[in-house]
Amino acid sequence: MNSQLGIIGSPHHLLGLDGISVDRLHALLRRAQVFAAGEESPNALAGVAVCTLFFEPSTRTRLSFQLAAQRLGAHILNFDASTSSATKGETDLDTFRTIQAMGVRGFVVRHKADGAVAALAAEAAPGVAVVNAGDGRSEHPTQGLLDMLTLRQAKGEDFSRLKVVIVGDVKHSRVARSDLHALRTLGCSEIRVCGPASLLPDAGTLAGCAVTDDFDAALDGVDAVMMLRLQRERMAEGLVASLDEYHRDYGLTSARLRRAAPEAIVMHPGPMNRGVEITDEVADGSRSRILDQVANGVAVRMAVLEAVLGR
Amino acid sequence: MNSQLGIIGSPHHLLGLDGISVDRLHALLRRAQVFAAGEESPNALAGVAVCTLFFEPSTRTRLSFQLAAQRLGAHILNFDASTSSATKGETDLDTFRTIQAMGVRGFVVRHKADGAVAALAAEAAPGVAVVNAGDGRSEHPTQGLLDMLTLRQAKGEDFSRLKVVIVGDVKHSRVARSDLHALRTLGCSEIRVCGPASLLPDAGTLAGCAVTDDFDAALDGVDAVMMLRLQRERMAEGLVASLDEYHRDYGLTSARLRRAAPEAIVMHPGPMNRGVEITDEVADGSRSRILDQVANGVAVRMAVLEAVLGR
Amino acid sequence: MNSQLGIIGSPHHLLGLDGISVDRLHALLRRAQVFAAGEESPNALAGVAVCTLFFEPSTRTRLSFQLAAQRLGAHILNFDASTSSATKGETDLDTFRTIQAMGVRGFVVRHKADGAVAALAAEAAPGVAVVNAGDGRSEHPTQGLLDMLTLRQAKGEDFSRLKVVIVGDVKHSRVARSDLHALRTLGCSEIRVCGPASLLPDAGTLAGCAVTDDFDAALDGVDAVMMLRLQRERMAEGLVASLDEYHRDYGLTSARLRRAAPEAIVMHPGPMNRGVEITDEVADGSRSRILDQVANGVAVRMAVLEAVLGR
Repeated sequence: MNSQLGIIGSPHHLLGLDGISVDRLHALLRRAQVFAAGEESPNALAGVAVCTLFFEPSTRTRLSFQLAAQRLGAHILNFDASTSSATKGETDLDTFRTIQAMGVRGFVVRHKADGAVAALAAEAAPGVAVVNAGDGRSEHPTQGLLDMLTLRQAKGEDFSRLKVVIVGDVKHSRVARSDLHALRTLGCSEIRVCGPASLLPDAGTLAGCAVTDDFDAALDGVDAVMMLRLQRERMAEGLVASLDEYHRDYGLTSARLRRAAPEAIVMHPGPMNRGVEITDEVADGSRSRILDQVANGVAVRMAVLEAVLGR
Repeated sequence: MNSQLGIIGSPHHLLGLDGISVDRLHALLRRAQVFAAGEESPNALAGVAVCTLFFEPSTRTRLSFQLAAQRLGAHILNFDASTSSATKGETDLDTFRTIQAMGVRGFVVRHKADGAVAALAAEAAPGVAVVNAGDGRSEHPTQGLLDMLTLRQAKGEDFSRLKVVIVGDVKHSRVARSDLHALRTLGCSEIRVCGPASLLPDAGTLAGCAVTDDFDAALDGVDAVMMLRLQRERMAEGLVASLDEYHRDYGLTSARLRRAAPEAIVMHPGPMNRGVEITDEVADGSRSRILDQVANGVAVRMAVLEAVLGR
Repeated sequence: MNSQLGIIGSPHHLLGLDGISVDRLHALLRRAQVFAAGEESPNALAGVAVCTLFFEPSTRTRLSFQLAAQRLGAHILNFDASTSSATKGETDLDTFRTIQAMGVRGFVVRHKADGAVAALAAEAAPGVAVVNAGDGRSEHPTQGLLDMLTLRQAKGEDFSRLKVVIVGDVKHSRVARSDLHALRTLGCSEIRVCGPASLLPDAGTLAGCAVTDDFDAALDGVDAVMMLRLQRERMAEGLVASLDEYHRDYGLTSARLRRAAPEAIVMHPGPMNRGVEITDEVADGSRSRILDQVANGVAVRMAVLEAVLGR
């Protein structure tokens, strides 16, 4: 059953959405929808110890996984490996193996280096599952899943006529990469990517996407606008001239949103920079599905934890 | 049922003791007394997720709420919003809404700004309850309640012949403000406030109190001495000349305590500055109810969480 | 029943292995072996609140106790008293008494000062148990127990023909001290201690041990090699010339390990400095019991918590 979830080569882990089969993706989303609707199996993971092992801090994602694990009856432990005293210079792999030896069966791992989560998963003992909670710029698969669940709730299961635009700093975004993998797998008919050239990734990442730096044009007739957070450090790096200019060119306003389809929804992975990539009016408006995304995050993580750790 | 607890305008929250009805206050104290006596209903909040959301750190208060929530069977989550990386510059309201969207039903919120907790509560979704764990200098209602429970255990339910003195930095104390509201509501016959003029609040806060800077006089015949913590920063601010001088004028010693009524009790919200506002002899003496206060804190928080979150 | 565990004078605590009776030691190890084998009594501590009270941070030890407490059904709270804001200058004893007053019945305490844990235990209320999770250079009794359990699993219950060497910074090691007490109590026939003179403790600590600074000689025919972590600060203190030199003289390599008995096992309390006191080949080799030690840590802590807190 667990192998239903599996990425090739790692049937007990969820390391990314790249290469996940369409059947597996739909199965996870259907199960997450059951949890989102309030039906829970509260003891699926009773007595199972799950550890959030974060080499890069993220309170919000950790909290969401924590709630998901608790609702399934798991014991949850938090290990913030980003504080130096926690590991005293031991290798990441030794930290992982040590906690694994304590009897922890599920690991929710975040790391700033691309591929670091997969590297740990490759060393996992039999019966131990690793879920990627974000690695470098590569993948954030549960964010990708919750975005798909949110799209599915608003637009239905069939993505074949959906027009979606992803806007902003795609280059540095693991969220965007996971979204792109998932949208392609689900057969989304038109994926647009919009942002300044300095924030666009390589051609491989953009395969199959319509790319533009013209936000107005990119919005035309889309069913969903997926905004990305602008990290302040992009300014220091010289990739963005100023917040004002970024807002002028890539900030989602109510006026701009009118270019999208009448029932278009707005998404954002949070935390938001209000007044930069999104205005209050849009963030809090009727089109916004931003809080649905947060709610779906818990449901998706329940589905994932159950799939990789359940009997 | 929940409305039994309610402050006007916020039936599902506990934001302060200002304006709480005497009936509601007594009901909460009676229920807390049941918990204090060891009778628990361990599953009253089974499966309910409660989050301590602290924009200002306080390990001790957080721990007390955590124990209260656990004993009621709730899932407890801790979010320390005082560390910058936790929120990445998002607004407090977005942080609150995000955690709420995850399915958290109870919030225990501390904030350094007056009114900030009420502002979040005003945005709470239906069925979500907010408990003020201290905001600015305004209120710390569960501390007020535990102080009243401690008084009630020592002196009985009828406060109409009670003489109480509150001593120290009333100006900056949310504890004192909540205590004053509760003492007035419960009909305490004589409320004295004592401290140097530099640490006394405005006249409104002191309404109905006998105010003096003479500690010896203030102690005369009182049934309870409620000491306040002296924050070290009051010296840097020039509000207190020195710790020695403060101790000489406002430190509670055994000798001074003899001025109080024979069965007078001593209270302190902790953490204590031993040798400053209170001597070891008094803190650890037979009149001290300081550890009872701590124990009552858990009982009171159980009663509050049950009242705002229970069915 | 609790007195089965007892150190003289503190029947409800586990403060150290110095003075523990051989019967009590065996009883704890037998019970831990039951837990290590996967047999648990998940509700032995149902509803009991256990607090990790760490005046010196240690994520790894805290996590192990946390897992042990959770598996016994306890409520677990973490109090990191090493961060200044947590205690606002109150005394350690007031912090302890405050948490005790909240109804916490079990304390797992770490402190950088020798004897500080025992000092708190001396003030514990009836029915409250204190477990030493490491104090100064004195004792780390659960580490000593898990080391004995690991030896017992590999070499059998009878320690009377066992040859063991402890290698490295014995002077500053509470782990080594607890190990020495336990090995003597269990009747280990030959205890060798090896390290540079600058890292050897006083003669009392070394009573009954064969002491040498020649690692090769010390390894000759031993059944177990217990390596210690080299703290980097020993260099700054001038006690060790360089990591390279330390590795040359006291690093455990595969070549050196051949001097030990054919079935000799290798132990290390972690976290390891790979390439300093131990090579990758040995740490990850077939003789290594380092991850077994970690697994045994949870089992031993379950046995200890059950013994001091169970009915």
